[in-house]
Amino acid sequence: MKTFACIAAAVTLLAFAAPASAQFAKPEDAIKYRQSALSVMGTHFGRVGAMANGKVPYDAKVAAENVAIVVEMAKLPWVGFAPGTETGGNTKAKPEIWTEQAKFKEKNESMVAETIKLAVAAKTGDLATLKTAFTATADTCKSCHDAFRNK
Amino acid sequence: MKTFACIAAAVTLLAFAAPASAQFAKPEDAIKYRQSALSVMGTHFGRVGAMANGKVPYDAKVAAENVAIVVEMAKLPWVGFAPGTETGGNTKAKPEIWTEQAKFKEKNESMVAETIKLAVAAKTGDLATLKTAFTATADTCKSCHDAFRNK
Repeated sequence: MKTFACIAAAVTLLAFAAPASAQFAKPEDAIKYRQSALSVMGTHFGRVGAMANGKVPYDAKVAAENVAIVVEMAKLPWVGFAPGTETGGNTKAKPEIWTEQAKFKEKNESMVAETIKLAVAAKTGDLATLKTAFTATADTCKSCHDAFRNK
Repeated sequence: MKTFACIAAAVTLLAFAAPASAQFAKPEDAIKYRQSALSVMGTHFGRVGAMANGKVPYDAKVAAENVAIVVEMAKLPWVGFAPGTETGGNTKAKPEIWTEQAKFKEKNESMVAETIKLAVAAKTGDLATLKTAFTATADTCKSCHDAFRNK
C-alpha cells in the first residue's frame, strides 16, 4: 500500500508542478535541462542495470543508492518538454511529444511510478527482485523512446 | 545542531563514495555526467536566486522545492572529476582540480555544506534568511569556479 501512496504522491506532484513555460527563459535552456536530467538519471540507472544483468557484482547498498538518485531524477525532466521547446537546440525529441501530450504524460507518469517500485525492490536486497523491477522500468524507458525520440 | 548532523552525514557520504575511476567507462562519460549534474543544479539554484534577488515573487514552497533539488544535485558532480578525466570532452575544468585535489575537495564539501544550510533557511519561510543563505552558497560556487574553471 505504501508503494501506491508514494506513486499517488508523485503523480500529484507532477500534476501540481508550476507551469513549465514559465520556468525557462529560452527553448535551449529547457532542452539542455531535460537532456541533463535524463543523462544523470541514465548514468545511475545504468549502474543498477549493470548489477541486474550480472555485469558487475551485486552490492545491495550501492544498488539502492543509485536507485534513490534515479527516483529523484525521474521527477525532473518533464517540465523541460514545455510547449515551445520543440526546437531550439540539438534535440532528438519527436513532434509527437507536443501533438500527443496525453500519451506522453502517461508514459512519464508510468516511468516515475516504475522507479518508485524499483526503489522498493532495491530495498529488499534480493537480486532477482531488483532484476524484475529493473526490467519493468527499462521497458517504460524504451516504450517512451520508441514513441517519442528520434534515433 | 541538526544542521551540523546533516553536514557531517553529507561529508561522510562523500568520503565513502565508491572510487570514481570505477564509475565511468570513458573520460567523456564522466565529463558529461558532471556537467549535466551541475547544469541541473544550476537551473534550480537559479530559480532560488531569482526569488532571493527579487526578480520573481517569493514563494516559500517553490523556493524550498527548488532548494531540495539543489541539495540532492550538489552531492553528485564530484565523482565525475575522477583522475583521468582532465581531458576527453568539451570541458572548462582547470588542471588544478587534479593537481590541488585537497583544495578542490574542500570547496566541494563547503558547497555541499552550504546547500544544506540553504535548505534549513528555505524551510523558515523567511525571505531575508533565504537571501543570506543563498548568497553564502553562491559565494562557494564562485570561489570554486574562480579557482578551478576556465572562463
